[in-house]
Amino acid sequence: MKISIIGVGLIGGSIALKLKQKKTADFIYGIDNNTENLDEALALNIINEKVDLKTGIENSDLVIIAIPVDSARKILPEVLDLISDQQTVMDVGSTKSGIVNAVKNHPKRSRFVAFHPMWGTENHGPKSAIAESFSGKAGVICNREESAEDALELVENVVKNLDMHLIYMNAEDHDIHTAYISHISHITSYALANTVLEKEKEEDTIFQLASSGFSSTVRLAKSHPEMWVPIFKQNKENVLDVLNEHISQLRKFKSALEKDNFEYLEELISNANKIRGILDK
Amino acid sequence: MKISIIGVGLIGGSIALKLKQKKTADFIYGIDNNTENLDEALALNIINEKVDLKTGIENSDLVIIAIPVDSARKILPEVLDLISDQQTVMDVGSTKSGIVNAVKNHPKRSRFVAFHPMWGTENHGPKSAIAESFSGKAGVICNREESAEDALELVENVVKNLDMHLIYMNAEDHDIHTAYISHISHITSYALANTVLEKEKEEDTIFQLASSGFSSTVRLAKSHPEMWVPIFKQNKENVLDVLNEHISQLRKFKSALEKDNFEYLEELISNANKIRGILDK
Repeated sequence: MKISIIGVGLIGGSIALKLKQKKTADFIYGIDNNTENLDEALALNIINEKVDLKTGIENSDLVIIAIPVDSARKILPEVLDLISDQQTVMDVGSTKSGIVNAVKNHPKRSRFVAFHPMWGTENHGPKSAIAESFSGKAGVICNREESAEDALELVENVVKNLDMHLIYMNAEDHDIHTAYISHISHITSYALANTVLEKEKEEDTIFQLASSGFSSTVRLAKSHPEMWVPIFKQNKENVLDVLNEHISQLRKFKSALEKDNFEYLEELISNANKIRGILDK
Repeated sequence: MKISIIGVGLIGGSIALKLKQKKTADFIYGIDNNTENLDEALALNIINEKVDLKTGIENSDLVIIAIPVDSARKILPEVLDLISDQQTVMDVGSTKSGIVNAVKNHPKRSRFVAFHPMWGTENHGPKSAIAESFSGKAGVICNREESAEDALELVENVVKNLDMHLIYMNAEDHDIHTAYISHISHITSYALANTVLEKEKEEDTIFQLASSGFSSTVRLAKSHPEMWVPIFKQNKENVLDVLNEHISQLRKFKSALEKDNFEYLEELISNANKIRGILDK
């Protein structure tokens, strides 16, 4: 199978590496506005050839859109305009309602499969791509009933070859769940980094004292705004809803401390401990 | 050197393993109210013998107190009552002002060295102990001028054998810095777990969708209240101060989203990104 990847960054690059390894892809065309990324992806053997959008699409069985969610939503209708009924398009964005609604009435809607791999890191660019990234993680396909059967089958096969386990969901539910499980973690981490940067003016002390716990909690705060601002924008209502809940949960800790109510503090912590049972199933 | 370890859990056990490996310790006495922990530590070859407090102290050159900070503060004067001028006592607690003040006027104060290794995990008990835990991390000694020179030297040697890099600080500064860099991360993580548990009633969805990002941010929420309630209690003022800042940082994200001010959102995220430069020095 010949594949075009629009956006040869962390996610697009990791998919390319894995699908080449699995021989799911015979040939990969790289398409990117960032020519530095393209050259790097070529040098790293992530793509076979760098091309423009039209050439890539003309020659591919599958087109994978792996750019920030606002650009993805914008480019998808243009891509669908260019493809035939034998070609398939998928995306990898962290929000799904926006993109699905953008092509709801497009005559080629059924050639598109809305996909979201539940994996990412705080890094970016093709040099951060790792073939094994997706192994064992969840791959979510949204609104499958809106995709043609053969397009769906092709993407399911790709997801299996990424060694992910498939989950089906409608786009709206997906966006609610990812607000809880992914998007709020990023806001928390950004806010924590800003807190420490605001309060702790001695950078050397941060560096010297930073424990593995701090590094782990603040890791996501390294994630770039180019990717995350569009996600928060597209999932605004859900993110605000969870953010309000998060602030009110933090206020409970504040109140327990202020009132020296250490029994309540213990209760809050014991409740949080339940996440162990769920994550370590 | 013969060492008594009071509290053979994650930290005490990890220190024991490493100091045996380095041959800094010839013999380790284990002291613990939890007999299950003691038996486990003995079976895992972490300690050589389980003893009562008095026997352990009588026979040791060094006594390491590795129990929650409230119990540590309580037991330290009793331990100092029992030792001679040839013996040394150290602790490993995450808050330092409380314990240092508790023995300020004790006639044996100079035999005590206040220590804090900047390492921990969300796990507990001797089975979680790992010899290499401390390698490359910071080990903080507080108020060194209040310790006798030979006691200080002995502990410095222990810290070097744990492969940690030494930092000296006064207890009050330590408690401010750890509030920023360690304690607030735990509250954030607990609150995030409670947020998700409150909003996401479908446990299976959490489990299936949980990405590495979420797991990493919420990891500390598995940490036990027995250890953390006393830390928050002893460092209450500093923790409240940082917690208030953290809530106000989160409110900035909320306000940016509510007002569709995506430039401000980008600014907040770009500022948070600076943590990369500091952590990855």
